[in-house]
Parts: sequence; structure tokens; C-alpha cells
Amino acid sequence: MRESTGHGGAGRPAAIRRVLVLGTGLIGTSVALALRRAGVHVALSDLDPDSVAGAIRMGAGVVSRPADPPADVVVIATPPSTVAGVLRDAQDRRLGRVYTDVASTKARLLADAELAGCDLAGYVPGHPLAGLELSGPWAARADLFTGRPWVLCPHPAMGPEALRLAAELVAACGADLRLLAPDIHDRVFATVSHAPHVVSAALAARFAAADDTTLSLVGKGLQDTTRIATGAPGLWRDILDHNAEAVAAVLEEVVSDLAAVAVALRGSGPDGPGVIVGLLSRGNLGRANIVEGAPAPAWRPAASPV
Amino acid sequence: MRESTGHGGAGRPAAIRRVLVLGTGLIGTSVALALRRAGVHVALSDLDPDSVAGAIRMGAGVVSRPADPPADVVVIATPPSTVAGVLRDAQDRRLGRVYTDVASTKARLLADAELAGCDLAGYVPGHPLAGLELSGPWAARADLFTGRPWVLCPHPAMGPEALRLAAELVAACGADLRLLAPDIHDRVFATVSHAPHVVSAALAARFAAADDTTLSLVGKGLQDTTRIATGAPGLWRDILDHNAEAVAAVLEEVVSDLAAVAVALRGSGPDGPGVIVGLLSRGNLGRANIVEGAPAPAWRPAASPV
Repeated sequence: MRESTGHGGAGRPAAIRRVLVLGTGLIGTSVALALRRAGVHVALSDLDPDSVAGAIRMGAGVVSRPADPPADVVVIATPPSTVAGVLRDAQDRRLGRVYTDVASTKARLLADAELAGCDLAGYVPGHPLAGLELSGPWAARADLFTGRPWVLCPHPAMGPEALRLAAELVAACGADLRLLAPDIHDRVFATVSHAPHVVSAALAARFAAADDTTLSLVGKGLQDTTRIATGAPGLWRDILDHNAEAVAAVLEEVVSDLAAVAVALRGSGPDGPGVIVGLLSRGNLGRANIVEGAPAPAWRPAASPV
Repeated sequence: MRESTGHGGAGRPAAIRRVLVLGTGLIGTSVALALRRAGVHVALSDLDPDSVAGAIRMGAGVVSRPADPPADVVVIATPPSTVAGVLRDAQDRRLGRVYTDVASTKARLLADAELAGCDLAGYVPGHPLAGLELSGPWAARADLFTGRPWVLCPHPAMGPEALRLAAELVAACGADLRLLAPDIHDRVFATVSHAPHVVSAALAARFAAADDTTLSLVGKGLQDTTRIATGAPGLWRDILDHNAEAVAAVLEEVVSDLAAVAVALRGSGPDGPGVIVGLLSRGNLGRANIVEGAPAPAWRPAASPV
């Protein structure tokens, strides 16, 4: 599928010549840089002209113009709550053949897109994993997705050609394609990303008004545990809102465990030591699973992907 | 106070010639190695002969013998729940002039020691911060405490000579001496260490039975957030039990925040977006404080320390 190009990127994709990136933040600009490196023509658009100008200065592409021919793929890299509206507008203006997005929630976006009257046949919901706590085009990197998972979410209304083009875009960015149904995607990311973000914030919030003595005794453990609490509240509210049920379910499990330990420590539970050792032991087991990970499932483009 | 010895350790302490270390796990053996490096004679004792033999092979000192003269300082490096009993036994056998320990909880230990009939005048509760998720003498390092905080907890029954000797031991280990009252110590460490450990375990516990799809999508954020969930459940149950009230209070705050977010996400709260953005913003602020830290308070040996 890929050809080595000698600079760490993937080979030039066969069927993708022109891509339009809507939204030139960290993710959109990084996608554009990765595609440029693979020899793809990239046009850029953003509500913020400074952001587009920054992305262009980084070599991410050229500014999009109304007279441009339709793109092979349009990448919508705007906040989750705006994706359905941007998709409908882009399809009305016939900006491309196939559309994908980069938001970290999927099922409600798909439902919103259907409600907004979008053409779902040409829409492939997507989620590249960047794992970087930065934002803005200036933090973008062509290798942001190299070797990292990039989830595409096939759905019944989607055409096979749309998935093929979106998968080619993922390969051109050097990423590791994963296919997940939208609701499975959302349950998985509630557990591995969205709920942990809230838990980390709740821990960090204890230090919003901490005294100097406390802050002078902070160690590496707390540093690590609260690292992801830096995310922008507005964007994260949007993400959490779009995956509300699944995130709430995980948080309720965490609350149940922590409340049981608090009761045990207050000496008012029936089996204090058992509750505490039980949670710490499950924590050990879960941590071992997290460290060990799991092999990425092989996906063969020739086989039926769903 | 310190003389450079050219190998990263502190100079030979003036008043400490002989130290007895009771308990040759990671902390006890590392204290012994640091003291050996500073030219101090160190005798070692542990219930587990293999552990003592391992520490001796690492150059941490010699095996303690009944005919040894009393040590200047006895370092009790055994689990929290055993400290009061070990202290009483050591004082009965007149093993040293001054006694300190390395447990990460302090107020209840001091109360237990009083109840056990220990001589509190010669007992300086201590807590070196190592920040290493390993255990056993084989993981020990002479520089484990170099430049790290080491808290001593003065209390009304303590004699000034005892504090002076314990402070000299801290300096000989290359650590950064801090003085805190026992109850303040426990509140601070409930917030910076004990409660975060339980929260990290509760997050990691969600992965005790995770499927391969979920585990294959774990990213660096979750890796960091759950790193401290590796601690030994028995030792941590002991620590939490000895700081039960303060840890429970922090956990109850975290539970309250997380439960409010879950309610907001379920759409059943009065001000969902406000609750969520409020917590995430406090998380941002707390994280900024954690990263910035606070300057270590200067302590001058000549001034009254308490």
C-alpha cells in the first residue's frame, strides 16, 4: 500500500490528488502537512485568517478559493459541535467527493449529520489520535500521526468508495488505520480518554487554591496523574457533551469505587480493608493491562472491512 | 553545613558516626547506601535474612549484632503499622540515642508510639520522598534522596538534640530538609500523594477486564494518569489506614466533583455546562499551580526550627 519516500512519510496516494482542510488548528494543519509531504495538493480554510496564514507559512498548502475544483477528500477539522453544520454547508457547496472529520466523538455527530440533512453516503466519520496537549497551527507537525492509530467509523449509509478514499488519506498521513462502529468508538474513548480527562481535572482541581507548603511537596506521581488536566475547557466540554452517556457511565463507576474507599476509611463500611485492598488490586491489574497494551488488529484492504 | 566530597554526596556528618537501619527494603537500603557514601558506619537488620544479605552485597553496611554499641541514630524503615512496635522494642533494647522513621504518615504513628509507651523525647518522625515505584534492596540507590524533600515532624515531647541529629542524617543523605507538624504533614500528603494514589487506582481498575480493542487504543494520557497505580496493595492499605481521615476528606471532594459532572452529562442537573466548564477550569488552574510548584522554604539550623 505504501511506498517509502525517504523522509518518513507514506507514498503518494493513488486516488487522492486534492484535499481541502476546513479548520487549521493543530490537527487540521498537521493533516495538511502530512498530505503535502505525500505529494497531495492541499487547500486550507478557517474562520480565523491568522490561523490560515500561519498554516500556509508552515508549508501546509494554499488558501482555498471558490473557483477550486472539488477536492477528492474534504477533512473537517473543527470542534465537535460544529462538524454537522460545516459538513452540510460543504456538501451544499459541492466542495468535495468524500468528507471525513477528526473529532474525538462519533455516534452523535453522525446522528447530527443525518438530522442536518447531510449526504451520509459520502461521509466517513474519523478520529486520528495525536496525543499532544498543544493547539494552533504553530504546534502542527507532519509526523503527528506517524504510526499512531486513526479510527474510521463505517456506518450503514456509507458508500465503499468513500471508505476507500478516507483509508487512503489515513495511509498517506502515515497512520495506523482502525475500523470501529461509531458507538463502539465512543464507548472505547469514554474509557481511555474522556473520563480520564475529567478524573485528572478533578484531582488537579484540589490544587486550584493550594498553599505553598503543599505545592512545594508535589512529586512526580501527581505531576503525571494531572498532566492531561491542561486541555481547553470549552473544547473539552464540547467533547464530553457529545459523548455524555458513555462518559457518565465510566465516571459513575469511578465515583462508586472512590466513595466505597472513603466510607471504608471513615470506618463506617462493613469490610473496610477488603474494599481498599480490592480496589488497589484491581488497579494493579488494570495498570498491567494498560502497560502491556494489545496488538493492533490487522486490517487487509483487500478484505471486506466491516 | 555540607562539604563537597566530589561524588555527589554530602560531607561526613559531625555528630553521627554509627547508624542502625531496621528494615532493608528500598528506602532503608538507600538510606544506608547514602550514609555509607558519607563515611558513616551502618549496621543493618531485617526480619528477612535474604533482604539483609542483598543490602550487604550492595555495600550498604554490615549485619547488626547484639554486642554493637548504641547507634547515634536508629532509622526504622519498616511498614507504617509496624513502626510503633519496632520503636518500642528498639528503645527497650537501647539500640540508639535518637530514633527516626521513614513512613509516609505521621500523626497516628506518633500517637501509636505514645500509646506503646515509647520515649518520645528521642523520636523524630520522618518522611523522605523517594518517588520511585520499585521495592526491595536491589532497587536501592545512594542518590535516591539527593536534592529531594525529606520531612521531619517536630512535636512537643521531642528534645532539641534529637532533632539536631535527625537533621544531620537528612543532610548526610543529600536531601532537602523540611519541617512540618505531624497533622499538617498528613493533610499535605493526603492531597499530594495518598488520595491521588487511590484515584489513579480507580481509573486503572476500569481496565482490569478491558477488551483488546480498548487496550489497543490506550494513549500516553492514560499511561501517565495511571502510572502510580502500581503500588503494592498491602503497603498502600497500611498507608491509607494510617491517614484515613485526611485521605477520605480529599476523596469525598473528588467524588463530589465527579458525581456533579456525571449528573450534568446525564442532563439531570440545573446547570450542566456550567458545572463541567467550572471543574475543567479549576483543573487548569490546579495543574498550573502543580507545574509551577512553590519555592522550598529556607530553614536555618541556627534559628528556632518550630
